[in-house]
Formats: sequence, structure tokens, C-alpha cells
Amino acid sequence: MRDLDIDLVVPDARDIVASLHPDGVLVTFLWDDEWLDALRFVQSISAGHTQYPHGALQERGIVLASASGVHAPQVAEHAFGLLLSLTRGIGVSTRHAVDRRWKPMMLDELTGRTIGILGLGAIGEEIARRADAWGLRVIGTKRNPSSYHGVAAMVVPPDETARVFAEADVVISVLPGGAATDGIVTVDMLRSLDGWFVNVGRGDVVDPDAILQAIDEGRLKGAGLDVFPEEPLPEESPLWSNPRVVLTPHTAGFSPMYGSRLAGLLEQNLAALAGEGPWVNRVV
Amino acid sequence: MRDLDIDLVVPDARDIVASLHPDGVLVTFLWDDEWLDALRFVQSISAGHTQYPHGALQERGIVLASASGVHAPQVAEHAFGLLLSLTRGIGVSTRHAVDRRWKPMMLDELTGRTIGILGLGAIGEEIARRADAWGLRVIGTKRNPSSYHGVAAMVVPPDETARVFAEADVVISVLPGGAATDGIVTVDMLRSLDGWFVNVGRGDVVDPDAILQAIDEGRLKGAGLDVFPEEPLPEESPLWSNPRVVLTPHTAGFSPMYGSRLAGLLEQNLAALAGEGPWVNRVV
Repeated sequence: MRDLDIDLVVPDARDIVASLHPDGVLVTFLWDDEWLDALRFVQSISAGHTQYPHGALQERGIVLASASGVHAPQVAEHAFGLLLSLTRGIGVSTRHAVDRRWKPMMLDELTGRTIGILGLGAIGEEIARRADAWGLRVIGTKRNPSSYHGVAAMVVPPDETARVFAEADVVISVLPGGAATDGIVTVDMLRSLDGWFVNVGRGDVVDPDAILQAIDEGRLKGAGLDVFPEEPLPEESPLWSNPRVVLTPHTAGFSPMYGSRLAGLLEQNLAALAGEGPWVNRVV
Repeated sequence: MRDLDIDLVVPDARDIVASLHPDGVLVTFLWDDEWLDALRFVQSISAGHTQYPHGALQERGIVLASASGVHAPQVAEHAFGLLLSLTRGIGVSTRHAVDRRWKPMMLDELTGRTIGILGLGAIGEEIARRADAWGLRVIGTKRNPSSYHGVAAMVVPPDETARVFAEADVVISVLPGGAATDGIVTVDMLRSLDGWFVNVGRGDVVDPDAILQAIDEGRLKGAGLDVFPEEPLPEESPLWSNPRVVLTPHTAGFSPMYGSRLAGLLEQNLAALAGEGPWVNRVV
């Protein structure tokens, strides 16, 4: 990377940001309105950006860029890891291994199946491309389907989410949190899914009780969950012990390559700030 | 499928085969020389065919066809399932789930890494294609590298297997059993692998003690194993409890789609037997 002669401050408390020079650059996933006067550019390290005050930033001419795409490869790998742990019995076999039990079981195959992706943004499309390359048919939802350019054969708006559940063998949610997506996945949708549900987006999208109900009373074969409405997942949750559930502790975004991808993005945007190139992922 | 007017006999004992009409067709993975006089065509349901007496079949004009390719999609999915369970901490998180423990850990990413495939046949190439589509660099071994036509960037003969371990981040073995491959993966190779080892071929290819030694003393980050020299895996095996090992009970070939793929293959070969088209996977 070019030497950009930057002092990198990693604040150990929120108020340290407010002491930044007025030409400050902030790399963050948190936000506090007190910081508005100290900044020229905010680089979010999250793909979503609903936590930032778009209007106030715009008023002051502060640029906001998201980290869209930086998380895509590892989240896609994580989603497939959870899914294949269900279809290939790896979660159940690991529970059996704890008891030293050799217990073959019927398994399933994804080739030729239909995968539905809720939220065909940067991460959703990364999952879509990988699924397409593996011989799955891809469908999904996007806030504005007419703006979609990708591999999916059918893209519908969020209010037609039920159609995706009805047609798919696998549904993967990468939906961000927020009022527009809270509880968007209902128990009826899950009960209509003759296959597997994976959530690597935000936990508020679906009630865990609905997942368990659809497993017990519906056709849902299993759920792979990285996110939950309450985190850490409470000790008393029945999700921990259900053999049809595979769960990870909100780690889908973890990757040793995350830092270098974010640094590459930041480098381009710092150059843009210096007037030496185009912005990447500019939101405001 | 066309109606082929066939009586399908599923023998419950080996000797029932010997009573077949001399125009018999046998679909099998077992072999007994007593059957030689009863057959015109043998359709193996396994990809390998070392269990059949090639010379004796040829002498009598009995055609032998393998099931090469029928297992490829599910074994490829299984191999990636085991691999992603290691790199995405799904095996360890499942062990934590048994104890209701929420314990995030650093995870890894495959994008841009090098995968080495031992045995670039039909199954190996299916894994290779899927890895290539996911942004991995593919290398591997094949008995006759000059006959290779696929996505791998480097293909070496089996006696250069150590090179694959030295250059790869992931090594997946799909090697069949037999004298040529027994013990071909050594402890030194495993100790040189700075990454993960997956075995969905045959268990005799590697000594489980060598895997555990390379995990403890080498750089091997984890092993995903579907096959073992002794199956079922003995209760006293330390593989059961090692958190860096993910294991399944020889189920990589299981798939609900296996039957229809085998039926499709059998249909083509029965047509060939009737002189109505070319043989598929003919070995003798």
C-alpha cells in the first residue's frame, strides 16, 4: 500500500473522537452526534449504515462510506458452512462424536435445488454467485428489484418474501436490522419451507420460537443461525440443544482478510478525500 | 425414463446372483468369481472398480462399467461441508452448543487460498471446479498428469504428493483404496501443511495418529474426516474428542439424488447392451 502519512487513532472511549482535528477521518461502526463537528469523512466498517445521521452529515458536507463488500466472501463461506453442516449431517455427527457414537444417517444434496436469498445486496450476491456456480437455481428479494443485475432467476420486493419461501429449498437471510426488516420472516413462511433456513444477517428478522415451531410442526428440515434477537444467546434457549439447529456466535463476518480488504477500501477513499480519485461505497 | 421391461432382482445373499439367466445384468458393489458364468454386463455402483476381475471379465466378453461421476456432487458438497466446518468454527461451536456456551473465536477464509486435491478424477474435478468458482487456486495429483484436462493450475504425479502439501492451504484426498494409495499421506506431509486436511476418499490413505501428531506438533490447523482405516471408528479413538477434528461416519456418498443418477447411467448402458447407443463409464 502507498504510504499515506496518517496518524491512526484507535479510540478506547467514544469521547476521544470528539477531540479529533476538524479535518478528521473516522473509521467506525459506532456513532455519536457529538462527533459531527470533528469530521470530514466517516468510513463505516459495517456494510449497513442506518446508524449514521445521513441528513446531518450531508448538511455539514461530511462524506460517509460503507464497508459494503468487505464482509462478502467470509459471510458467504459462513452461510454455506452452516447450510452444508445441516444438509451433510455435520452438526448432528459432531453431537454424536461428543458421545463417541458412529451413526450414519440419510443426508441431502444441494445440486439442482433452488436457493432463496433475502437481501440481494453485496453479500447476498456473493452467496448467489457461489450458489449459481455450484448448480443451484437462485431467487431472492431486493428492496428495488428493477435495479438488480446479478445471477438470480427471479427477484421480488420484500413484500413478496413468502413467495421465496414457497419456491425455495433453502432460504438464506442476509437482511440488515431496522424497522423495515424486523420480524419480516414469519412462522407461516418458515412452515412453508420444505428445506433449510440460514440466517447470517440480523437476528431481529425472525423469532427463534417461530423457527423451532416450524421444525416441530412444519416441513423445515433445519436452521443454521449465526445471529439472534438476544446476544449472547440466553443459556435457557432451546436452540442450543436442538439437533436440527446449527449455530455460531455471530462470527460470520470474522476473517483474517477483512483488515486488508478494509485497508484497500480506506486507501481509495482517503485518496478520494485528497481529490485524487473516485469514492468507493460513498453513501452521503 | 423409458420403460425397459426389466425384472429387477435385489439379492439378499451373494449366491442368488449365480442363479441369474446367462444374459444377466448385475448392479453391484460386491464381487464373487462364481458369478462369471451368469452375466453379460456388470454395472458397478462404486466409482472404483479394483474389486472386479478385469481379465476374467474380458475373456468372457462381459462388460464392466463403473459408477464414476454418480457420487461426485454429494462428495464435493460433503468435502466443502467438512472444510467449512473447520475454517468457520462450526464444529467447535457445535461442541460449545452442547455446553450452552457462547464463545466467539477467530475464523478463517478460503477465498484466494490454494487447495490441493489428491486424485483429480471425476470426484476430484467436481471439487476442483467448485473451488475454482469460489476463487481458490487449485493444484493436485493424478496418476497420469498428462491426461488431465480441468481447472487445476498444477497437476503432479502421486510420487510428488509432498509438493501439493507444501504449496496448499487445504488438501482434500479423494484417493481410492488399494496398494497404490495405502499410507501415501505421511506425517511429514501433514506437518508441512499450514492449513486443513480433508479425507473423503478411503481411510487407509493416512494413519489417524499422523493426523493427530501434525495437529499437536505441526502446523495442521484441523482435519475433516469421513473415512478411517478402521470403521466404525473405535470408541477409544482420540479423534472423537479432538476439537480440531470434524468427523462424519463414512456418509460423503449419501444422497437422495444418487439413485436417479445411477438409474440414468444404467438406462444408457442397458441401451448400449441392446446395441442402441454408446456405453458410459465402460471399464472392460
